[in-house]
Amino acid sequence: MLALRVDRKKVSVKDIEKPERADEVIVRVALSGICNTDLEIARGYAGFNGTIGHEFVGVVEKTGQRVVGEINAGCGECDLCRGGDSRHCAARTVLGIHGRDGAHAEFLQLPRVNLLPVPENVPDEHAVFTEPLAAACGVLERVTINSDDHVAVIGDGKLGLLCAQVIALTGAPVLLIGKHADKLRIAERRGIETTNPKLAAKRKREFDVVVEASGSATGFGLAVELLRPRGQLVLKSTFHGKTEVDAAPIVVDEISIVGSRCGRFAPALDLLKKKAIDVDSLISEEYPLAKGVHAMRRAGTKGILKVLLRPL
Amino acid sequence: MLALRVDRKKVSVKDIEKPERADEVIVRVALSGICNTDLEIARGYAGFNGTIGHEFVGVVEKTGQRVVGEINAGCGECDLCRGGDSRHCAARTVLGIHGRDGAHAEFLQLPRVNLLPVPENVPDEHAVFTEPLAAACGVLERVTINSDDHVAVIGDGKLGLLCAQVIALTGAPVLLIGKHADKLRIAERRGIETTNPKLAAKRKREFDVVVEASGSATGFGLAVELLRPRGQLVLKSTFHGKTEVDAAPIVVDEISIVGSRCGRFAPALDLLKKKAIDVDSLISEEYPLAKGVHAMRRAGTKGILKVLLRPL
Repeated sequence: MLALRVDRKKVSVKDIEKPERADEVIVRVALSGICNTDLEIARGYAGFNGTIGHEFVGVVEKTGQRVVGEINAGCGECDLCRGGDSRHCAARTVLGIHGRDGAHAEFLQLPRVNLLPVPENVPDEHAVFTEPLAAACGVLERVTINSDDHVAVIGDGKLGLLCAQVIALTGAPVLLIGKHADKLRIAERRGIETTNPKLAAKRKREFDVVVEASGSATGFGLAVELLRPRGQLVLKSTFHGKTEVDAAPIVVDEISIVGSRCGRFAPALDLLKKKAIDVDSLISEEYPLAKGVHAMRRAGTKGILKVLLRPL
Repeated sequence: MLALRVDRKKVSVKDIEKPERADEVIVRVALSGICNTDLEIARGYAGFNGTIGHEFVGVVEKTGQRVVGEINAGCGECDLCRGGDSRHCAARTVLGIHGRDGAHAEFLQLPRVNLLPVPENVPDEHAVFTEPLAAACGVLERVTINSDDHVAVIGDGKLGLLCAQVIALTGAPVLLIGKHADKLRIAERRGIETTNPKLAAKRKREFDVVVEASGSATGFGLAVELLRPRGQLVLKSTFHGKTEVDAAPIVVDEISIVGSRCGRFAPALDLLKKKAIDVDSLISEEYPLAKGVHAMRRAGTKGILKVLLRPL
């Protein structure tokens, strides 16, 4: 089968063996989405070599059931796994990121417990957003947002646009901060206020919660400035390498910085079912899996949002 | 009157006018304590010029009442001040740190609302620790610690020793991490487990809460390593300038970093009244205020804990 693979920072489409672990479920991939993490892995992040990709919708080969899948596969035996949350299992593998081949392939395998059926009214092109939308919903697992909280989201990429939309559903006023008028417009159409970083910088100490989804050190610095004393900064994106941080305002203003990674799939599927989130506007381009290398290059191009891959 | 002053990074004892604002209370200082923040201010931190010092016990000149005083003086009119907490009032002055002459002087002035009477059984040498002890108690305002949480405190300086003692009172097992056997012994005598940073580094992911009180970038890095996924790092000390931080483990392990500065005085006075905290062992040296410059040098010397100043 075809698979988009990273081998020591080299990306290529290869013809490899189909997965066939008897204790897991084989899924025929219908559509997969390229995430910024895929681009980072191709640059060496996480030291992963193998098939990349962790956003997908597919069909269980044996049953024909259409599914999406949570990407963290736990040991099944530790306290976390037995509690029903493998996301922080120390022995976990992660689809296309750590110890497990990923979704940019004709087939993938995952434990049965990771798979969730896709509601009938959710098309593949929406279902493929379940994983990143769950990550956006994950913000609400980490901080409580009330409808009178003022929230800013920094970054108008895919993750920022999803976070802004999810948080706006709480009723809290959301300001999305980004540099790209065309991307900001997607949020504006949902009634979300937007601005650029320069104008945002004039609104120091106005926000109770700031979500940093730009993945840049300047975004982090702006986030700290925008927060009121005792405000909460949700760190949604990792940066390349190390970032210079001034600890003084964190201590003096008693800010909290809260890391957030994966979210649960069920709330995300529910939002997709209700058509509560505009994901259509996030789709920039689609390529056949065989053109995966070109698709990766496109996904890293300025102005491009989600690039999808379809195994034919 | 004599006062220990910083003027453009130069420290000297000067003879200045006694304070006399009619709308505030004049306090004759009995004893003041040199804090690391004083040393930082002498190096240029906070850009403060004036009388330094914010840890004191004294006597209200008009009434003879023995008092300690909260250091943040708010505007009295904003929502925070009206809610009874001026610590984050945007217009606040801070005793000996920001916009207000401090406590290393024969007299100081503060708003009446800032002053708390000292219980009779608390001697001056204990009462002078109210402010730093309140800062240690402030950790418990920012994170909830249960008796089955595993807690590490990094740094065996004055603040680390106070934090470890305060947290141990919750019943949670506390590990104090430091490099100085003589300082660690103070905690050990209170039944607190101690170790050095090298041995501590072997206990990765064991702790629910880590308090960073060493003020060093290596302390911060160690704190992140010691935390379990979704653990909480309390940032108690600022660092000099900027610190390099790797954001990836914060996001991947979903850690929270919680800034903590000043605490309320009442809980600290209560602990001193109950003799629940060993502060005697923290006193290294005492000097007359006139020798304040020398005392500051001593306070910055390795191995020295609290240096007290007594206006004669």
